[in-house]
Amino acid sequence: MNSPQPAARDALPTAFVDTLRTAFGARFSTAQAVRAHHGHDESHFPDALPDAVVFPHSTGEVAAIVAACRAHRVPIVPYGAGSSLEGHILAIHGGLCVDFSEMNKVLAIHTEDMDVVVQPGVTRKQLNAALHGSGLFFPLDPGADASIGGMASTRASGTNAVRYGTMRESVLGLTAVLADGRVIRTGGRARKSSSGYDLTRLLVGAEGTLGLITELTVRLHPLPEAVSAAVCAFPSVDAAVRTVIQTIQLGVPVARIELLEALTVRAINRYSKTTLREAPTLFFEFHGSPAGVEEQAASVQEIAREQGGMDFEWATRPEDRSRLWQARHDTYFACLNLRPGSRGVTTDVCVPISRLAEAIAGAREDIAASGLIAPILGHVGDGNFHTVILVDPDNPAELERAEALNRRIVERALALDGTCTGEHGIGFGKQDFLLAEHGEAAVDAMRLVKRALDPDNLLNPGKVLPGL
Amino acid sequence: MNSPQPAARDALPTAFVDTLRTAFGARFSTAQAVRAHHGHDESHFPDALPDAVVFPHSTGEVAAIVAACRAHRVPIVPYGAGSSLEGHILAIHGGLCVDFSEMNKVLAIHTEDMDVVVQPGVTRKQLNAALHGSGLFFPLDPGADASIGGMASTRASGTNAVRYGTMRESVLGLTAVLADGRVIRTGGRARKSSSGYDLTRLLVGAEGTLGLITELTVRLHPLPEAVSAAVCAFPSVDAAVRTVIQTIQLGVPVARIELLEALTVRAINRYSKTTLREAPTLFFEFHGSPAGVEEQAASVQEIAREQGGMDFEWATRPEDRSRLWQARHDTYFACLNLRPGSRGVTTDVCVPISRLAEAIAGAREDIAASGLIAPILGHVGDGNFHTVILVDPDNPAELERAEALNRRIVERALALDGTCTGEHGIGFGKQDFLLAEHGEAAVDAMRLVKRALDPDNLLNPGKVLPGL
Repeated sequence: MNSPQPAARDALPTAFVDTLRTAFGARFSTAQAVRAHHGHDESHFPDALPDAVVFPHSTGEVAAIVAACRAHRVPIVPYGAGSSLEGHILAIHGGLCVDFSEMNKVLAIHTEDMDVVVQPGVTRKQLNAALHGSGLFFPLDPGADASIGGMASTRASGTNAVRYGTMRESVLGLTAVLADGRVIRTGGRARKSSSGYDLTRLLVGAEGTLGLITELTVRLHPLPEAVSAAVCAFPSVDAAVRTVIQTIQLGVPVARIELLEALTVRAINRYSKTTLREAPTLFFEFHGSPAGVEEQAASVQEIAREQGGMDFEWATRPEDRSRLWQARHDTYFACLNLRPGSRGVTTDVCVPISRLAEAIAGAREDIAASGLIAPILGHVGDGNFHTVILVDPDNPAELERAEALNRRIVERALALDGTCTGEHGIGFGKQDFLLAEHGEAAVDAMRLVKRALDPDNLLNPGKVLPGL
Repeated sequence: MNSPQPAARDALPTAFVDTLRTAFGARFSTAQAVRAHHGHDESHFPDALPDAVVFPHSTGEVAAIVAACRAHRVPIVPYGAGSSLEGHILAIHGGLCVDFSEMNKVLAIHTEDMDVVVQPGVTRKQLNAALHGSGLFFPLDPGADASIGGMASTRASGTNAVRYGTMRESVLGLTAVLADGRVIRTGGRARKSSSGYDLTRLLVGAEGTLGLITELTVRLHPLPEAVSAAVCAFPSVDAAVRTVIQTIQLGVPVARIELLEALTVRAINRYSKTTLREAPTLFFEFHGSPAGVEEQAASVQEIAREQGGMDFEWATRPEDRSRLWQARHDTYFACLNLRPGSRGVTTDVCVPISRLAEAIAGAREDIAASGLIAPILGHVGDGNFHTVILVDPDNPAELERAEALNRRIVERALALDGTCTGEHGIGFGKQDFLLAEHGEAAVDAMRLVKRALDPDNLLNPGKVLPGL
């Protein structure tokens, strides 16, 4: 894990500040409080403040911002909801933070085509509120109320990805401002296309280093006719994981399948005042027709029973489901609460489903050997799981142990044909892992693309690519 | 539509020929018959022969080929099964054809993870034969027995894409040789990842212009427990299209939903000796559990009935289904057979589902006005349809009318928020349309990527990007 190395740098050029102030008035700020608010995310990394923050309202304004930054060689850091876990929005080289929170309009809802056009600052909850009554929803749910632009930039996913895919599958098209100030439109509203290079998916997951996303066309899904959720406790983590593997391999189209180990359940019980049995647990959700949901649930119950699953408890009322998933979403904070004052170093590996049991068992051994507190939870239907390693941010030795633990978990995942990050992204915390995962030649190819599209390295510099 | 402009050029350098002959022996050929075999695809474009053909067996050999081509500035044209419809494999600037047909090993079947690792020359039918008994299948089906490498390169899809996605969703990872001779590995076997730029999807659909794919990890699906297929005739194309739109909008997970107009059905009856009613027709296929398939079929039957659908005829026996889909797959040749000696100019637009009726009705008017014979068929669940414009290849005036008709159909599709190609690719036939669809700035961004990864323009030159 790299530490941010704020380069010694000059303050922003006066001419640049004047240009922005004239164009944006009160929507441009160099105030300490505004900079401080934009200088940290949800990760454990130290704050790194931008020199100024601007709040654009349109693609044209973003293009003007990029032109000014290019003229004065000012780094640009895009900012969504600030819920990143890998330091994406830390201004480690200073520069201008472009806060998209005021570009938060839902521009068009195409009910008949099940897609929506949004500005990047729209959050997923806001989008689903706007879709109320349409019969459609945006299923991706990373827990935090992240912005759609930020979710695209980190190729986010979350609890529903096992059924509905990730942002890679969800984004149909983009408008983006490139480093040269030009506005491009990628993709489109057709469901498939063989028309040229896939610039959409090049920008999705690029963490703001190849262009600033100013508009997104996103795929929606019909609200399922029937939904049911259930909780099931298991005698061991292994038994729970075997249940997951068999469910996926049988092709049961579960919408959510989440693993929590006993410690994680204890954290949830304390934080969310729930009374779940403190054992390894799976949370399930099934979507479909009434008959389909019943069929799915019956299949999974049978698998779980064979693995010693206990207490298959149903939450059929919407309010019970909401309480359940809210508790699941609050797990990160519930975990932090196990050790007041701590921050979380979150691991995010993802492995092929057949290697999941080995990856999790290995992680549990590593955690035990480390002496650290690190509850495990995860979107196990995808082979993705997290450990929230609780650290005292003022204890460098402990932070080092946490980073060593993270490295061991990642190295095992890579040896098991997995990835160092299933959904959080590289940021600057995982650049060594990027290299270990893809190799020098592939990372060089990424660098060639970056240099071609951003020769002056102005877009979110220091993120994703080591040595850039 | 551009015409291929074979540049005046020298023969292959002697030193280059000597190098390849020494390394590959009989697997390197400059024989006229071999060159001629590799000088055309299934399109109407005139033949353009490579100067030589080589048949590599490994990634290492491909890297050596690229190194030799680079040293001698010899263009490289990758060749799969030759079933392209947009001239992708025509050697319009001469050079070396790299025929991947002898790189046709299925390297690993990961049943538990539902993925497979293949060499690029493996064809889709070969792959499904290799999967026999595994309980899994590779659903993508473009009709032709295309190679998996070629399908990835054109971002192909076909009849099953409405349920299982396209090659964009199916390719999990790649090994590729870049223009500098370096071997990269992209993606991996984890189901999702936020690790760096999406080089996998940059290469998928790049038509061999950014790298030569030498290995692919491809997603598989469980064989459905139950399958049923049906044919339904409609009083009008509009009624059939309305049935499709409502089916998709209701979220019925049909596996296939294909439209054939009356003329197309007539062509099939003649060519495949079937006795289908010569009316606008939909072919359906449903995959799922027995109950799920019944539920899907009941929903669709109800929709079809409301639109005046007649003769909902079931093909439940596997041999009846095979006959049905074989007839569907032979449609291209059945259409050509409507006018013996003709070749097909195939259009391939794809529009948002809500605009499908307008796009098809407009195409029918354009065809009528053109005086040409051009049956319509299509993967309408995706909003994708084809017209096969039958032309006398020796009649330039007719070819020009066909191209004008193609242009009108594309222009309407773009105006309806669609794409000029749903699944066939750009090749050199659609470069003007690429520009019209994406605009100068986006195509320039593609050019920047191309120049960064292939500065000497050696990889399939003259394809995809206008002016390169």
